[in-house]
Amino acid sequence: MTAPPVVSHSPVPARNRKLARSSELIGGRWTLLILRSALYGVRRFDDFQADLDIPRSVLTNRFAGLVESGIMAKRKYREEGHPTRIEYPLTKMGASLGLPFFAMTEWGDKWIGDGGSPYMLRLTANGQRLRVALVNERWRRVKPSEIEIVIDPKFRRS
Amino acid sequence: MTAPPVVSHSPVPARNRKLARSSELIGGRWTLLILRSALYGVRRFDDFQADLDIPRSVLTNRFAGLVESGIMAKRKYREEGHPTRIEYPLTKMGASLGLPFFAMTEWGDKWIGDGGSPYMLRLTANGQRLRVALVNERWRRVKPSEIEIVIDPKFRRS
Repeated sequence: MTAPPVVSHSPVPARNRKLARSSELIGGRWTLLILRSALYGVRRFDDFQADLDIPRSVLTNRFAGLVESGIMAKRKYREEGHPTRIEYPLTKMGASLGLPFFAMTEWGDKWIGDGGSPYMLRLTANGQRLRVALVNERWRRVKPSEIEIVIDPKFRRS
Repeated sequence: MTAPPVVSHSPVPARNRKLARSSELIGGRWTLLILRSALYGVRRFDDFQADLDIPRSVLTNRFAGLVESGIMAKRKYREEGHPTRIEYPLTKMGASLGLPFFAMTEWGDKWIGDGGSPYMLRLTANGQRLRVALVNERWRRVKPSEIEIVIDPKFRRS
């Protein structure tokens, strides 16, 4: 985004912001860690527990919240010779967090720490590195100076 | 990202994750709100205070953290006939949060609430709506099935 001119207040009042609601749903320390593991592909209660070294009661509590908000599903599974257990796959809503998480990771890789990145996304076919960008309808690059913010009048501060 | 296969643990141990460090820097409730206003273009102490209805002591404290982490700068300004005051513009590091914030907003617009969006980004020239996407080096769209995650061995769990 281009550097905006100085303004005296946000055009949309804070009470309408979904950013805060999103932050409530996914922003807790443990919840962020659970989602991180889930985006890597972890699904099973015991695996999350061992992966994060998280107290079981906290994990149960966080899963309940994530299932209630529709980010994770709760599903029974059974492997031969084992009792029935529970797994928590990401729903489509949850898997859609991959893009904002990756955008945030790119920001952290660039601005925090030594500049290294623990992982990257690339094309399987040719190894090209991928990144997050703002694109137009034809999928073309846009420059910050070409962009404007348009506020929906229905949300505008009165 | 494509739905990954079930894995038993994250390939990168949680202690290396910069996501958590990023979350410490920007994840607090007030800090998120301050950054939101700043990305809209608010810069001045009194404007932030009025915009967010935030206690002055809390605002001072959050600005100190944001300046220390390099996300905001602290700068004096003076308008004719007024005493010198302080403003807090975003640094380049801070302005770079625009992309992850917008990615998160898109997620919230799609999955939370009534589906409406308080604002959109579009091209000034022709009004085309913009969105956040994963692109390759030639800025072409990539499908989730074409993507792989590659872990830097240096960060890999031993």
